[in-house]
Amino acid sequence: MVYLIWVIKMRNIIVGQSGGPTAVINSSVCGVYKKAKELHINKIYGMVYGIEGFLNENFIDLDDYLSDDESIELLKRTPSSFLGSCRYKLPKVEDNEKIYEKIFDILDRYEIDGFFYIGGNDSMDTIKMLSDYALEHGKSQLFIGIPKTIDNDLPITDHCPGYGSASKYIATSLKEIIRDNASFGVKKPTVCIVEIMGRHAGWLTAAASLCKGDDCEGVDAIYLPEVCFDLDEFVSRVEKLAKKKSSIVIAISEGIKTGDGKFVCELSSSSRGVDAFGHKQLSGAASFLASVVSSRTGLKTRAIELSTLQRAAAHICSLTDVEEAFRVGKKAVDAYSRRKTGVMVIIKRSYDTLYRTSVSLYDIHDIANVEKGVPLGWIDKKKCQMKKQFIDYAKPLIQGELLPIFKDGLPSHLVRK
Amino acid sequence: MVYLIWVIKMRNIIVGQSGGPTAVINSSVCGVYKKAKELHINKIYGMVYGIEGFLNENFIDLDDYLSDDESIELLKRTPSSFLGSCRYKLPKVEDNEKIYEKIFDILDRYEIDGFFYIGGNDSMDTIKMLSDYALEHGKSQLFIGIPKTIDNDLPITDHCPGYGSASKYIATSLKEIIRDNASFGVKKPTVCIVEIMGRHAGWLTAAASLCKGDDCEGVDAIYLPEVCFDLDEFVSRVEKLAKKKSSIVIAISEGIKTGDGKFVCELSSSSRGVDAFGHKQLSGAASFLASVVSSRTGLKTRAIELSTLQRAAAHICSLTDVEEAFRVGKKAVDAYSRRKTGVMVIIKRSYDTLYRTSVSLYDIHDIANVEKGVPLGWIDKKKCQMKKQFIDYAKPLIQGELLPIFKDGLPSHLVRK
Repeated sequence: MVYLIWVIKMRNIIVGQSGGPTAVINSSVCGVYKKAKELHINKIYGMVYGIEGFLNENFIDLDDYLSDDESIELLKRTPSSFLGSCRYKLPKVEDNEKIYEKIFDILDRYEIDGFFYIGGNDSMDTIKMLSDYALEHGKSQLFIGIPKTIDNDLPITDHCPGYGSASKYIATSLKEIIRDNASFGVKKPTVCIVEIMGRHAGWLTAAASLCKGDDCEGVDAIYLPEVCFDLDEFVSRVEKLAKKKSSIVIAISEGIKTGDGKFVCELSSSSRGVDAFGHKQLSGAASFLASVVSSRTGLKTRAIELSTLQRAAAHICSLTDVEEAFRVGKKAVDAYSRRKTGVMVIIKRSYDTLYRTSVSLYDIHDIANVEKGVPLGWIDKKKCQMKKQFIDYAKPLIQGELLPIFKDGLPSHLVRK
Repeated sequence: MVYLIWVIKMRNIIVGQSGGPTAVINSSVCGVYKKAKELHINKIYGMVYGIEGFLNENFIDLDDYLSDDESIELLKRTPSSFLGSCRYKLPKVEDNEKIYEKIFDILDRYEIDGFFYIGGNDSMDTIKMLSDYALEHGKSQLFIGIPKTIDNDLPITDHCPGYGSASKYIATSLKEIIRDNASFGVKKPTVCIVEIMGRHAGWLTAAASLCKGDDCEGVDAIYLPEVCFDLDEFVSRVEKLAKKKSSIVIAISEGIKTGDGKFVCELSSSSRGVDAFGHKQLSGAASFLASVVSSRTGLKTRAIELSTLQRAAAHICSLTDVEEAFRVGKKAVDAYSRRKTGVMVIIKRSYDTLYRTSVSLYDIHDIANVEKGVPLGWIDKKKCQMKKQFIDYAKPLIQGELLPIFKDGLPSHLVRK
């Protein structure tokens, strides 16, 4: 009896989010919560603003928000990080052991023995370092990573929750942009250059190819960061296209680089600093290319940056994506109940005719800090288009809709008080 | 009998679209088509690329596209100009009478006696000039304007079809941007400046105020072109806000001007030429302000331009707007059947507790080339916010949804072959 009380008392868990938010990241929180309730876990804490908030003991009790199904349905439809995120990179143990001691002290004090972190490459690095530290120092806490990134660049997993919804938004918006750009039948063509997120991996930009279909001519060219960018080739392609059609729409990644390794956006004067992980903040590549095309060819140009909307547009999220985000959350808690640590949940695809996935676990050491780009064999470099392999890969991920709960004409969200 | 045949033979009509497209402009085409079929009008032509295409006799027969209800439902959900648009400004009669003779020659040859033009200020000018010419030269053809503009700046009519859907997109996107921007709890606040369309009228930017509600803190400031823009006041407001909160989101109109009449976007080096109506192409105001704030205050900034998405996002259109666009199209053909000419359809709002509208007609001479801005009394200049009068005016316009017909994960559209 005494033993039982101890078990129940110790079984608190905490879940946090880190890095850039997505449209479905909160569904993973819902998955964690639901599974934890099934397992009768005592307290389910949320850390506010990731590990940074954790260090300040900035916690909420998820029971205060998610105890009814209506709230869970609302949170599934809420974009961005409900718990709050951070870009705080944990130092190496040898550089600052104090911080690790502090983390484990907090975990002990709150009687938390399960730590779940939803994020991308940098967040998985945090899971790796904490689980390594725990093992090396005989700590009982378990650390499990839950994948999320619109960039889709985590290795091992077939794809990452967040990517499907961002792709659905990108393809939907491009269909609309293409219709808009084709409105005018003027002889002087309009060149619309659409800039899509993705620092080093072109997954999101590749999703522009999904808009092509019976009712859409598709984008005229796609430039991914996986392929070296040649400004002269670009302008010459636009000129050739302009001889054949009056509406030209081109998708480019924010991360395209020239042969000498320079980001195209750095060629202009408007690049904008560095984030807390030391990544360059990229933007302005489309603006720069639009001005180059305009001045070299005299064509009318327009630059569109999809900006943060592509990661925040929960109103057009993919049901497949939402459901998978929920599943990876549940799976993480299931793994915890089986005393796993130092793992990330991955999604596996079965290669039969129908799209089917299963979730399993993988050693975090093979995942953290590894970036997975678009396979070069999936890119038709000559035509600047994606090959069938990519379409077959990405199309299932944008299927289905989880429609917003509209209130007074707008989608409702669940927010922290 | 002979007379009857003549009547039937002559009763062809033509409908066209002009100016910037919207998410619901095609619903007016549907309205025109449906009413014309009810009245057993013989041929219902669509002019491809507005009056410019008309002069090249670039016509389609709408029966080829809209004869079944499914196609009409699809067209209602198709953004941008299905028929194609133009920015061609008809010259004055005294400058080029030949062009008028050509137009009436084409109308006679195709036995068209009803001409419907869906557009904004410039398009209504075309209706005015053509209807005046017809009356002065004893021509029997009738010319009727159908309002459409996301800018909402046509006078007399309570509001313009297209505005409601653009507002719904803007408010939805801002709710998502605000959630996204609030993700990070860092001490250094992030200032997100969102640029919204509207050259001279701030209606669209004002719609940013609609995002405020129980689940959204709303935007921190709204800058409309109706109010003189002061750069120092702007920076000082941002600084004050940054002392109180870590996420700051500000909506600005692309058309904001400083005291000396200069567009803010012209203060930077990236303004981009002039369109065919001689309007300056504005963009870059948000980028410019973001860089000013960043350099003067050291705060982290982000500029987002909603760009053409705000006029093309049919996937989140307002049902109220779609239905009204349909109604004004029907009303135009009804007016034609009662031999009206030189008029535009207007929307009237009844001022009782429930939002209710009726449609009627108004002399085009009082409408063409007149721009209606946001009433200054609806703007709280000190707080940089919209007053309750605006919210009461705009909120009914974004109500209801006409959900896309999804095919393979994406909204379907109807396109010309």
